[in-house]
Amino acid sequence: MATEKAGGKVWIVPDCFLPAESTGKLKSHESACVLNIGKKPARLKLTAYFENREPIEGLQAACAPRRTNHIRIGSLKNRRGQAIPAGTPFALKIESNVKVVVQHTRLDTTQPALALMTTMAFMAG
Amino acid sequence: MATEKAGGKVWIVPDCFLPAESTGKLKSHESACVLNIGKKPARLKLTAYFENREPIEGLQAACAPRRTNHIRIGSLKNRRGQAIPAGTPFALKIESNVKVVVQHTRLDTTQPALALMTTMAFMAG
Amino acid sequence: MATEKAGGKVWIVPDCFLPAESTGKLKSHESACVLNIGKKPARLKLTAYFENREPIEGLQAACAPRRTNHIRIGSLKNRRGQAIPAGTPFALKIESNVKVVVQHTRLDTTQPALALMTTMAFMAG
Amino acid sequence: MATEKAGGKVWIVPDCFLPAESTGKLKSHESACVLNIGKKPARLKLTAYFENREPIEGLQAACAPRRTNHIRIGSLKNRRGQAIPAGTPFALKIESNVKVVVQHTRLDTTQPALALMTTMAFMAG
Repeated sequence: MATEKAGGKVWIVPDCFLPAESTGKLKSHESACVLNIGKKPARLKLTAYFENREPIEGLQAACAPRRTNHIRIGSLKNRRGQAIPAGTPFALKIESNVKVVVQHTRLDTTQPALALMTTMAFMAG
Repeated sequence: MATEKAGGKVWIVPDCFLPAESTGKLKSHESACVLNIGKKPARLKLTAYFENREPIEGLQAACAPRRTNHIRIGSLKNRRGQAIPAGTPFALKIESNVKVVVQHTRLDTTQPALALMTTMAFMAG
Repeated sequence: MATEKAGGKVWIVPDCFLPAESTGKLKSHESACVLNIGKKPARLKLTAYFENREPIEGLQAACAPRRTNHIRIGSLKNRRGQAIPAGTPFALKIESNVKVVVQHTRLDTTQPALALMTTMAFMAG
Repeated sequence: MATEKAGGKVWIVPDCFLPAESTGKLKSHESACVLNIGKKPARLKLTAYFENREPIEGLQAACAPRRTNHIRIGSLKNRRGQAIPAGTPFALKIESNVKVVVQHTRLDTTQPALALMTTMAFMAG
């Protein structure tokens, strides 16, 4: 198979949450980790879905060919300046113009010490 | 592909457990996180399977179109008032009338500090 | 689809490890969590693979119809009395006579506090 | 099915990171855990992708038949002596000459106590 084209163009992560608090020197955060093993740059469009409000659309990121990008979700903004608020349950859809692989990880230091969780995103296209 | 219809209608999580104890300010809990990127409301029916007793059926939840719902498993009740007891191993089947994506997460603060684990549910239909 | 037959008959977990130590009241352990939503009892045969020795074969467990079984890996023995040693990297193959779903979880309290990790097993048949 | 041939020949892990610090007696590390249930030795070729530099290619490992290998990522070197630096986000592609199953795990003791995360790698071939 052509491993140059590994993955998919639509990825979904239902459990997202940016913890509002941190302890110690590691800051709580979430990352959508993208790998692009192909030859073309990946343009990524992210949509954040919430429980009680309209989605935030048009969050943008990129991943160069033969590069990874561990995207800090809390740093994203769309053209209207919208960002994802901390302390709020949400979900992500990540769309790419080329095939990529996406893994999603939360690092949570709300309580002393450190908690990690990760999963491959669900490939939907 | 029509990303409006991402996911499946039957999802399974074999490892569920509601820790009976918590430390600090974060309460131990489990969430079944559902994303509905379609245009129709999702009606969800959950079944809890146990090791040594009959399943609890008819637990209900919902997820509006273009919304996520991070369902607290410990808060669910069926029409007969049955809820899932804490401190007991169980498993979940989640059925939806429309396609959704389900991720399952446990937050455990039984011992000081914080532990997290997550996985995409197994898509069975 | 017939959700009565969800899952597969062969499941694989490459990263297994029974921590030899525990702190606090939660004992370090691993569980292979099986859900059988069908109508027939599941007879399970587990094989443990190691880095530098022959596999341990013939570890047995069961899962009744419409039940879950959170199998403690450290408690399994085969007919020859072989069990999986703690503190040793290994991997598991879980075979069933009927379709089941398998999720694998490690709880590790080697260092104070609590760490959890989980993943769906890889469905290989 | 022939369970002798479970898995795939190309596996991808977008979220890799070797923590530079540890506390307690458990050293922070990542492992790519490989299971080879077949009859032929697996020759593994790993490629590490970064955010801002060319990939490190030609990292090599092996997994004997009917054996597992929990490969310590931080110990790998290629023929030119290149190794993956700690404290740097990266991603892995793992290629095998025979079918294997790959699970990826991080153990992080940067802050006191212990955090674990794991996921099956994404099977891309």
